[in-house]
Amino acid sequence: MSVMPVLLVVEDETLLHIAIEDELADAGYDLVFISNGTRAIEELHANGQRFKALITDIRLGPGPNGWEVAHRARERLPSLPVLYMSGDSASEWAANGVPNSVMVSKPFAMSQLVTAISQLITEADMRSA
Amino acid sequence: MSVMPVLLVVEDETLLHIAIEDELADAGYDLVFISNGTRAIEELHANGQRFKALITDIRLGPGPNGWEVAHRARERLPSLPVLYMSGDSASEWAANGVPNSVMVSKPFAMSQLVTAISQLITEADMRSA
Amino acid sequence: MSVMPVLLVVEDETLLHIAIEDELADAGYDLVFISNGTRAIEELHANGQRFKALITDIRLGPGPNGWEVAHRARERLPSLPVLYMSGDSASEWAANGVPNSVMVSKPFAMSQLVTAISQLITEADMRSA
Amino acid sequence: MSVMPVLLVVEDETLLHIAIEDELADAGYDLVFISNGTRAIEELHANGQRFKALITDIRLGPGPNGWEVAHRARERLPSLPVLYMSGDSASEWAANGVPNSVMVSKPFAMSQLVTAISQLITEADMRSA
Amino acid sequence: MSVMPVLLVVEDETLLHIAIEDELADAGYDLVFISNGTRAIEELHANGQRFKALITDIRLGPGPNGWEVAHRARERLPSLPVLYMSGDSASEWAANGVPNSVMVSKPFAMSQLVTAISQLITEADMRSA
Amino acid sequence: MSVMPVLLVVEDETLLHIAIEDELADAGYDLVFISNGTRAIEELHANGQRFKALITDIRLGPGPNGWEVAHRARERLPSLPVLYMSGDSASEWAANGVPNSVMVSKPFAMSQLVTAISQLITEADMRSA
Repeated sequence: MSVMPVLLVVEDETLLHIAIEDELADAGYDLVFISNGTRAIEELHANGQRFKALITDIRLGPGPNGWEVAHRARERLPSLPVLYMSGDSASEWAANGVPNSVMVSKPFAMSQLVTAISQLITEADMRSA
Repeated sequence: MSVMPVLLVVEDETLLHIAIEDELADAGYDLVFISNGTRAIEELHANGQRFKALITDIRLGPGPNGWEVAHRARERLPSLPVLYMSGDSASEWAANGVPNSVMVSKPFAMSQLVTAISQLITEADMRSA
Repeated sequence: MSVMPVLLVVEDETLLHIAIEDELADAGYDLVFISNGTRAIEELHANGQRFKALITDIRLGPGPNGWEVAHRARERLPSLPVLYMSGDSASEWAANGVPNSVMVSKPFAMSQLVTAISQLITEADMRSA
Repeated sequence: MSVMPVLLVVEDETLLHIAIEDELADAGYDLVFISNGTRAIEELHANGQRFKALITDIRLGPGPNGWEVAHRARERLPSLPVLYMSGDSASEWAANGVPNSVMVSKPFAMSQLVTAISQLITEADMRSA
Repeated sequence: MSVMPVLLVVEDETLLHIAIEDELADAGYDLVFISNGTRAIEELHANGQRFKALITDIRLGPGPNGWEVAHRARERLPSLPVLYMSGDSASEWAANGVPNSVMVSKPFAMSQLVTAISQLITEADMRSA
Repeated sequence: MSVMPVLLVVEDETLLHIAIEDELADAGYDLVFISNGTRAIEELHANGQRFKALITDIRLGPGPNGWEVAHRARERLPSLPVLYMSGDSASEWAANGVPNSVMVSKPFAMSQLVTAISQLITEADMRSA
């Protein structure tokens, strides 16, 4: 049984899975990768309580994009920390992001991902305390 | 010509217009009231630059609700300060609000409205400086 | 029936009740004053849900002081906004205050009280949304 | 003897003194007005401890401008709250302002002034506690 | 002579010392471990100036718990950064924590510890500048 | 072609370049080192758009110091993240730093550098979105 916090990472570029996994595992997280928006929403609605945070790319191929995944996640889990990874969609965050979310814009450093997700989870734990 | 900052207030309960106008005019703001979501979006897209902030109720009768008005406003004006006034829809903010927005939940004190909108506008001015 | 947010003010200097009442009523709040720490704790444990925030002086005559009142309040109501009014006890806040509380130090302006309590309540409503 | 917090306001447009005085006195502050940058710096260095905050216009006629006044004030009083009122110089704040300062851009609402200065003073009191 | 910032870690589960030491030494900190609340308070009162921050577990076996250690530390060192590591006591933080403290809830990622303590120390240095 | 964010580091103690490079490269950044204030300002004015942030020591030998470098950088790039590394000049930050800057005081942990710069860049990207 894992004793590390579990993150759901929604990313359709599977080549990025290894880089993200290396960095976040080293930081102390367990990761679950899903490449498709529809399946991500299903997983969040079925087993959302197991995840400490959601990390999602914006463009996700066919089906819901990252804005939609986060929107649907928050309907079920209002306090879920959300971090978007954005390439050319950064300018849409102000209109499409959820409150208290963070967006990192490509190219970003892996430490931006680690710092932001760690801070979001700590803040969420303090709010729910 | 006005030298006071202008706020767009989207509120379909016209009985509330006077209370809001009294308080915010006393705080130093000029107000434009619109009762309907569709017309609010049109006004924001046609003349958005004249408004320093958007204050919107959530339930707005027929047409787009307050979540949709703010979403559409931010597409055109990404840095527009947004404040929601919510009755029984407060729990939906985490899923439907835009980033950096503020929500006040009814019953709220008028000073919550004044403090929040004043702070949002000052922060937006500093970011765009 | 009141439709204004209700604040509990714990202050043993009854001469201050009028000044505080004038200012906070004008800001849109209903106030309940209690002069004694023991009775404040009883009221918070019996009817805490009716209060949107606690404002407390530090020195309260015989019985629990303001640090203790807030401490006991948070045991029952973990998300209750807390604002301390302090005269010569300001330096003790870092050791005795509760998390996410605000302290105003005498002499303070009434607008410090209004701004701080309005912001605390709005933030608490957004966290619990 | 005053029991209200005292603010130093540096503003060379004396027509604005009355509007600012009305608003900030109503908010609970005592004001000292100085119209000239050189004299403001002298007063801050001679009697700086009496002021809870500095409010300064940017353009001040002959002598030091508002950026310079705040810079010199912080050399003597590192924790002094600083609020700039800016007309057409807002874009210079990112380069010329001091840390933890606030800028309000004309046209601004008087409540922006009151909210910002009240919050800055409360935060400074909590840091020095 | 060390040129790394020194942290006091109060933790009675000595099996955790190695994991914490590995992570925080790698992040650039020197650590002093104490397993007992009474001795931690003595050390903080005798040599508190050498520590840049306090990290404390809540449950500490016989003697003062982590809430009490931080409370006593802040009496002597009001600006000391405080980080709590909590297992099943997280819900007590809102009542028992000190202002401006951070709490990480088990299971937490080591990067939550590093990010939070690094940010607390930087903020404290900027406040005391 | 690099796909990592590029930082400009202004530091005249070249012995420190390796330690900083090791840490920040590991965190995911590309670095450009300049040892002299005058050349740093020239580079920022000529090629400023390539840098995601400025990290600067305060004391820089002959020519402009770190305060001046950041000041000049922000005239051209108002939203550039700025991080100061300070030895014995920390107390001058409140008077000489630019708004929204961060200062780390020696001795600091490398994780303070990484956490602060990562957070500043993410915040700047969200503001400009």
